[in-house]
Amino acid sequence: MKKLLNNVDQVVEDMLNGMAAAHSTYLRRLQNTTVLVRKQSPVNGKVGIVSGGGSGHEPAHGGFVGKGMLDAAVAGEVFTSPTPDQVFEAIKAVDGGKGVLLVIKNYTGDVMNFEMAAEMAEAEGINVQQVVVNDDVAVEDSSFTSGRRGIAGTVFVHKIAGAAAESGADLDEVKETAEKVIHHVKSMGMSLSPCIVPAAGTPGFELAENEMEIGTGIHGEPGVERTSILSSKETARLLFDKVQDDLHLQKGDRAAVLINGLGSTPLMEQYVFTSDVKEILDEHGIETADVIVGEWMTSLEMAGISLTLLKLTPDLEEKLFAEADTPAMKRFAK
Amino acid sequence: MKKLLNNVDQVVEDMLNGMAAAHSTYLRRLQNTTVLVRKQSPVNGKVGIVSGGGSGHEPAHGGFVGKGMLDAAVAGEVFTSPTPDQVFEAIKAVDGGKGVLLVIKNYTGDVMNFEMAAEMAEAEGINVQQVVVNDDVAVEDSSFTSGRRGIAGTVFVHKIAGAAAESGADLDEVKETAEKVIHHVKSMGMSLSPCIVPAAGTPGFELAENEMEIGTGIHGEPGVERTSILSSKETARLLFDKVQDDLHLQKGDRAAVLINGLGSTPLMEQYVFTSDVKEILDEHGIETADVIVGEWMTSLEMAGISLTLLKLTPDLEEKLFAEADTPAMKRFAK
Repeated sequence: MKKLLNNVDQVVEDMLNGMAAAHSTYLRRLQNTTVLVRKQSPVNGKVGIVSGGGSGHEPAHGGFVGKGMLDAAVAGEVFTSPTPDQVFEAIKAVDGGKGVLLVIKNYTGDVMNFEMAAEMAEAEGINVQQVVVNDDVAVEDSSFTSGRRGIAGTVFVHKIAGAAAESGADLDEVKETAEKVIHHVKSMGMSLSPCIVPAAGTPGFELAENEMEIGTGIHGEPGVERTSILSSKETARLLFDKVQDDLHLQKGDRAAVLINGLGSTPLMEQYVFTSDVKEILDEHGIETADVIVGEWMTSLEMAGISLTLLKLTPDLEEKLFAEADTPAMKRFAK
Repeated sequence: MKKLLNNVDQVVEDMLNGMAAAHSTYLRRLQNTTVLVRKQSPVNGKVGIVSGGGSGHEPAHGGFVGKGMLDAAVAGEVFTSPTPDQVFEAIKAVDGGKGVLLVIKNYTGDVMNFEMAAEMAEAEGINVQQVVVNDDVAVEDSSFTSGRRGIAGTVFVHKIAGAAAESGADLDEVKETAEKVIHHVKSMGMSLSPCIVPAAGTPGFELAENEMEIGTGIHGEPGVERTSILSSKETARLLFDKVQDDLHLQKGDRAAVLINGLGSTPLMEQYVFTSDVKEILDEHGIETADVIVGEWMTSLEMAGISLTLLKLTPDLEEKLFAEADTPAMKRFAK
């Protein structure tokens, strides 16, 4: 295992300190927790939004803490759900009196622990609602999941629900907005090589030199098939078709596209893939309101990519483009 | 070689099409060239800024084409200088009557080809100046370089010279600003694993399972030493010391910091390293005006990181934070 670390048992701790040090104008770490919250928390009179999950998916979720997205991100150990008490600390810290929405990726541990935290918060009189993101169309049920997994489409939920909260919507409205995004967003990924959880020290799965896997999860969960390595064009067609089976985009529909690198796939390859995806969308007469290319929901150093399509309605599009400012969007800005 | 591609000989072509397709509100590709220019080019009455070099360093340089940074990026084949005629096309396309500045990374081929293009442009009556970035303190002279190599510090040159040009400065002033940044910016990197140029199909160098290399260039050029794998703390100390030897930051100085992932090093590890760098800067009483973490000047899928420090003066800091909008900064924005 070749990693730039100090201590495998301290990697999440060290990472959180690095995020807090680099992005101190955006966020701070709640003492003695694995929670990053907006620097000024809570925001009074605004619905708070809390997300999180296992670490190893950076910039998700700490990179999305800031204006127009998340109020808090709770980090678990690598690929491990955060505990209920950590989520509870996050909820308490960001409740500005209008309640808190939890955005949970659909993994059994996450759902259980976030729900337990919600109960703890309700017992203290905080109004908490939750949504579960399950955008991965690859498989039903998986290693750590009952139903479909939540992957990169979660970023659109953060962004659009975040815009709703920022505009002053109440908890029910923010939840409805998040659910509308979840209904309209579908994703699927593929991998060319596995990743290594630091504490494990060995790859989570293996792929032969001429093999790729279609539909791999972001923790290396099995996908739908292993095949000899396909071209970018073939891969784009395959992922698009599977996503489209669920999303039923029509000619003239507007979509936002997220081409998400899983870790070690160079931006060069991501753009080659983007070109192929765009060609398919053009063939179908689907208009792209936005095409985002880069690393948003990673799997450590896994090689691979995922395709996310969000079917837009005018209200979703407006919120997608609403102002937001978070570390993952930080670019030469105070 | 496991890559998501269609044809190794078409990879730059396909990538440029993907960038143009994804970022059509920012830029366009000049027909029959490997040049990406701002969508509205030239910008009349503004100094044009042209950069570029071999491909494989994405988002550099196409991702920096846009308001407040570059007017054009010229792409060569992977790790290969663009030809003079391509650079010449870029210069012609972005000259808005106030002349053009070329920002060249210090590699022999780049310097030669950009200079030849400058001569071609001068012959057509376009005023062209150039600066050569040589921020890599690792080694004097290298495989493809006489003197020091240009690496991630180039991004600060783009940003700050870009701000000067945007504010209406004339060609001499923009050049002076760029030279001031070059004088104040130093970098050094390290690698844990090599990368594979698609057309070659095999790694450019080899590192044993327990080895890392200090001072590797962004094309895999040899660094200063190979060592058993150091901790992040040790690596941070080593890179900082070498950069500081040249930069002589004093207590109370303000600096901008760029922690740059080379390709397959997870953001998790980049943030661990960030935490260690920040600790060293704090020890020295150096104030950080900005800490940027992520992939800005990559080497395909090389594992590794570079540290760049820019010593700030008030005028540089103002330009660093001036508004800019380019695809590499694109985040849910029209």
